[in-house]
Amino acid sequence: MIIVMKAGAAKKDRDLVLKRIRELGYKPHVIHGETRDVIGAIGDERGKAVLQSLESLHGVENVVPILQPYKLASKEVKKEPSLVRISDNVVIGGRQLVVMAGPCSVESEKQIIDSAVAVKKGGAQVLRGGAFKPRTSPYSFQGLEEDGLKLLAKARELTGLPFVTEVINPETAELVASYADILQIGARNSQNFALLKKVGQLGKPVLLKRGMSMTIQEFLMSAEYIMSEGNQSVILCERGIRTFETATRNTLDLSAIPVLKEKTHLPVMIDPSHGTGNHHYVAPMCYASVAAGADGLIIEVHPDPEHASSDGPQSLKPAKFDIMMEKLKLFAEAAGKTLI
Amino acid sequence: MIIVMKAGAAKKDRDLVLKRIRELGYKPHVIHGETRDVIGAIGDERGKAVLQSLESLHGVENVVPILQPYKLASKEVKKEPSLVRISDNVVIGGRQLVVMAGPCSVESEKQIIDSAVAVKKGGAQVLRGGAFKPRTSPYSFQGLEEDGLKLLAKARELTGLPFVTEVINPETAELVASYADILQIGARNSQNFALLKKVGQLGKPVLLKRGMSMTIQEFLMSAEYIMSEGNQSVILCERGIRTFETATRNTLDLSAIPVLKEKTHLPVMIDPSHGTGNHHYVAPMCYASVAAGADGLIIEVHPDPEHASSDGPQSLKPAKFDIMMEKLKLFAEAAGKTLI
Amino acid sequence: MIIVMKAGAAKKDRDLVLKRIRELGYKPHVIHGETRDVIGAIGDERGKAVLQSLESLHGVENVVPILQPYKLASKEVKKEPSLVRISDNVVIGGRQLVVMAGPCSVESEKQIIDSAVAVKKGGAQVLRGGAFKPRTSPYSFQGLEEDGLKLLAKARELTGLPFVTEVINPETAELVASYADILQIGARNSQNFALLKKVGQLGKPVLLKRGMSMTIQEFLMSAEYIMSEGNQSVILCERGIRTFETATRNTLDLSAIPVLKEKTHLPVMIDPSHGTGNHHYVAPMCYASVAAGADGLIIEVHPDPEHASSDGPQSLKPAKFDIMMEKLKLFAEAAGKTLI
Amino acid sequence: MIIVMKAGAAKKDRDLVLKRIRELGYKPHVIHGETRDVIGAIGDERGKAVLQSLESLHGVENVVPILQPYKLASKEVKKEPSLVRISDNVVIGGRQLVVMAGPCSVESEKQIIDSAVAVKKGGAQVLRGGAFKPRTSPYSFQGLEEDGLKLLAKARELTGLPFVTEVINPETAELVASYADILQIGARNSQNFALLKKVGQLGKPVLLKRGMSMTIQEFLMSAEYIMSEGNQSVILCERGIRTFETATRNTLDLSAIPVLKEKTHLPVMIDPSHGTGNHHYVAPMCYASVAAGADGLIIEVHPDPEHASSDGPQSLKPAKFDIMMEKLKLFAEAAGKTLI
Repeated sequence: MIIVMKAGAAKKDRDLVLKRIRELGYKPHVIHGETRDVIGAIGDERGKAVLQSLESLHGVENVVPILQPYKLASKEVKKEPSLVRISDNVVIGGRQLVVMAGPCSVESEKQIIDSAVAVKKGGAQVLRGGAFKPRTSPYSFQGLEEDGLKLLAKARELTGLPFVTEVINPETAELVASYADILQIGARNSQNFALLKKVGQLGKPVLLKRGMSMTIQEFLMSAEYIMSEGNQSVILCERGIRTFETATRNTLDLSAIPVLKEKTHLPVMIDPSHGTGNHHYVAPMCYASVAAGADGLIIEVHPDPEHASSDGPQSLKPAKFDIMMEKLKLFAEAAGKTLI
Repeated sequence: MIIVMKAGAAKKDRDLVLKRIRELGYKPHVIHGETRDVIGAIGDERGKAVLQSLESLHGVENVVPILQPYKLASKEVKKEPSLVRISDNVVIGGRQLVVMAGPCSVESEKQIIDSAVAVKKGGAQVLRGGAFKPRTSPYSFQGLEEDGLKLLAKARELTGLPFVTEVINPETAELVASYADILQIGARNSQNFALLKKVGQLGKPVLLKRGMSMTIQEFLMSAEYIMSEGNQSVILCERGIRTFETATRNTLDLSAIPVLKEKTHLPVMIDPSHGTGNHHYVAPMCYASVAAGADGLIIEVHPDPEHASSDGPQSLKPAKFDIMMEKLKLFAEAAGKTLI
Repeated sequence: MIIVMKAGAAKKDRDLVLKRIRELGYKPHVIHGETRDVIGAIGDERGKAVLQSLESLHGVENVVPILQPYKLASKEVKKEPSLVRISDNVVIGGRQLVVMAGPCSVESEKQIIDSAVAVKKGGAQVLRGGAFKPRTSPYSFQGLEEDGLKLLAKARELTGLPFVTEVINPETAELVASYADILQIGARNSQNFALLKKVGQLGKPVLLKRGMSMTIQEFLMSAEYIMSEGNQSVILCERGIRTFETATRNTLDLSAIPVLKEKTHLPVMIDPSHGTGNHHYVAPMCYASVAAGADGLIIEVHPDPEHASSDGPQSLKPAKFDIMMEKLKLFAEAAGKTLI
Repeated sequence: MIIVMKAGAAKKDRDLVLKRIRELGYKPHVIHGETRDVIGAIGDERGKAVLQSLESLHGVENVVPILQPYKLASKEVKKEPSLVRISDNVVIGGRQLVVMAGPCSVESEKQIIDSAVAVKKGGAQVLRGGAFKPRTSPYSFQGLEEDGLKLLAKARELTGLPFVTEVINPETAELVASYADILQIGARNSQNFALLKKVGQLGKPVLLKRGMSMTIQEFLMSAEYIMSEGNQSVILCERGIRTFETATRNTLDLSAIPVLKEKTHLPVMIDPSHGTGNHHYVAPMCYASVAAGADGLIIEVHPDPEHASSDGPQSLKPAKFDIMMEKLKLFAEAAGKTLI
């Protein structure tokens, strides 16, 4: 932390700042500038947030953090990329480009099995599908709940594809974990810290989506919540942030890929379906994600989008998914990844 | 919903749209424009979100919603303002301007009792204080939990002030409700639908904060979640939205007051402490909120902000709170409100 | 500037940073932290932006600016508020609350004269009206240009009200200045530096609108452009920033008032018409602006909004303007301002 | 336009709306809904903005535009992609992937010639370099002006590379056009309509950058300004939009590529240097842009970034540029483009 004093602040104000820094367990170091003093606080980086309260002191202009507050998620702590093992065939974060695909919601046995068969044929290695759905409106379809989980398990049995599904409540998290291969934390729950702690205590890999107005730093702090409970198998997923633009449902922030790759060892996936909200834009954003260095993609595919209970407009039909996957191979190869 | 066809869309595409609208239970009505057709779908407004899936059909340019999807929260359903009764002396939504004040977190018995005595003296009618704290970092102070609730109850006993405190987990919601007078849903949980449903089932008034990147419409949908579970005592609270500006912690959206007053019968409060993140800006924003028609304010006051465990820089000292409250009376009067 | 080195950066990397700081004319000062070094650069604050290029050097984590880059606009240079004199009766920045009102565009002699008479009767001290219009579409009405300026001058002659009008091109700036009392720089030209320099060279007061995605710091840098050319008569005007919210045309950032009052001596006005885009929300935002400490308001008033060439939906009718102005007096009084 | 009436609006209110629609030259068409009426206005699409003023009428809930207001830029008018010819060897918008590269500012003869030689060697087909610089601070380097143009011309003579440079003022636009091969309109001038009209009248191709908070629709309206003056050679360039995220200088919106490709026939380029503000992130964003379908890239390359007068931290060194260009070929090939 850097404490910037006001121009012309009194000596007694500065002395009080120095005293408080020492009280909080840090060592102050003063730089005398031309018009003002600047004070560095030296010591353990993790607890430095408490120094922010010095901003209340008289004579202090502001307190500038210079370091990131996460540790377990940081590349400074672990330099080599983390590999998250989902099954014998699926490992995220290495050379393998992992594609998760399927419908937004599980709607019926036929729908989820048709979807699983179709996405497997197209080359997906993981099935996605929602059983507990966080919907903006209480009047929208809320998911099949445990019945949906059972149908996902049936689809897995039939196709061999592991599945990812969302967990929305600490009270039902263990139930979901007893079925699913990967637990998804959705964008709206990305700072639901009670839920993050809960999935940190369960043994399953977690796909953590970035919140709609979450900075990269906050994103890594949410990963840190899960990791600090003992679960290191965290996969980060960018899914579009909220901006002023309305031509797309969200603004897919692909620069998050190199930024995250610089700051963390955790694998990074992209969700171009929620990121754009429009099936026309999904394929180009898949190619771009892989070119930028993504470790995987999660894509909405529905056998009959115009009858979907949710997110129809952003779902690919299986035929379009197949064409996209064919072309994706070229980009994966250029990026040094393998799409098995 | 208005379904806009592409310029030059084929008749068979249009006919399929008409068929699907009828299948979904709505009556289509076509307007033939100069370059394209536009189709209205007539019927019950609440379920119209399903029509969005028609955007997947061939020949459809886009689907434009023209109506708000909330009902219980809407002024169309209930024209007169709702009054939320907290105690014999405190009613939110009428002529009384209600001020809630206190520290961000409960830290100790002395701290919360000093705070309660101070804010009561200054004119606050409700005490605020966090016992379960949603913190961005797992390494930051997480609150005193049930011990904090007990201290708040002790402060209430001593001063007669009812208190508001945050609930962050469905698993502990009943515990919190057994102590608190008002349950707060924080910004980060504003679309934690499991939690919204839970507090909708408990009998206590709910102070619902707007999420950091939540539209007014989504805000009212979250209120609708609580109300659709049977709890009509919802107080809306604007606390700043996330924008590009960094001079303030958030951007306090005061135009939300007249917008909400136009759309809903629920009372509207403002949190200028989180809204600005800087105690220097709190007083002017309190005056502005009341002038714009707010029903109440929730303000961070701490007897010793430079030693606060959280949010020190945005907390007022009691002496500054007193001065602000004195001047606030003038603006309350001009706005036709009474600050008892 | 604070240069933050990477954890474990080599000594030779640090030495190169020190060398470059000295080459650029600053004095380096190293703080040895627990995991990394942090280097302060001491010297004249205005030119420090050049130090940003050190971020390219090996071993540098990032470069953190700690000071504001404006000077003439800064309160550190001039502590007392600046008064901008428009006419014998109108001075902005002191006790007088100044209201500028009138239509978006000058459309005809009758329209502008009716408007001028109406807003004067309601209590406005300055007439507003656009002659050169910056319109998003080339097919929209572009203004009456010099004919519009002549009509504004005629309205001034008749009512005694000075007028403010927009300047959109360095090539026509002198022409506009030969008629107008105040030159307005619109939001879309707020970083049109060629235009800012031009109005800095003309003798007339400038009403500088904040850009749609302009930070407070950039806003003050644009004021600095005008002032550094010799024109100190700059009035800042917040008119709403662009955010994700669509319930209002823009998000009116009223916290800009106390933030600007803390950082600059220049007067601050608010435009609630563009800020909200809806005439229903204008009056509450006028009251809130004054309560927050604004020095003035600029409001769209049109005798016949539903026939307006531009911005009809956000224009008040004269009768509504009168009612608003009556009630505004109460808030002005509470704020210690006079509305003559 | 769709005019939505309030629930329970009076018949006389609706009749007045119908009358006004007819007066404005459109044909109204009423849909009677269950709780409210909705009115379509049929007629020429370009002038429909005037209907927005109906929102001021009593009984009107809101006015919903359903169509885009641009025409010349629209794919509905011209289906095949436009090719913009820069020289015998350089055509933008076809199979050729065009890379423009060079320093932010022209600083000296040696610097610009070294840069030109280096980027040509790396494979760039166009040289970039600023002579007139729009800088946020009046105290920053403002460019070498005409001397800079002469140096760019000298570099062109030496290397055969055509060059693009920024125009910032209608008064100097012709001067710039007398030297440059492509005129750049920067982000801060993207709604400087006087400048857009001016470059629309000059014969040179225009590289139009998207404004920092410009929607795709506004972007196309700015292109329409240039085209409506007679100049059809417009190249669109996404360069990052302003959001809440601070890990990158801007947020590069790569989904703008498929969105623009759907709506317009104009070529689309990407500026990853300004888009990210950090040279570490430039290469991955180059690959992603090409994978998403971009027609070209504009990249900052500087022989000595740590001594650059502007934008050092986001400039690539020539050696890094060469490596990037080598790898880019693989992605260009996968995307069906040729990088000559």
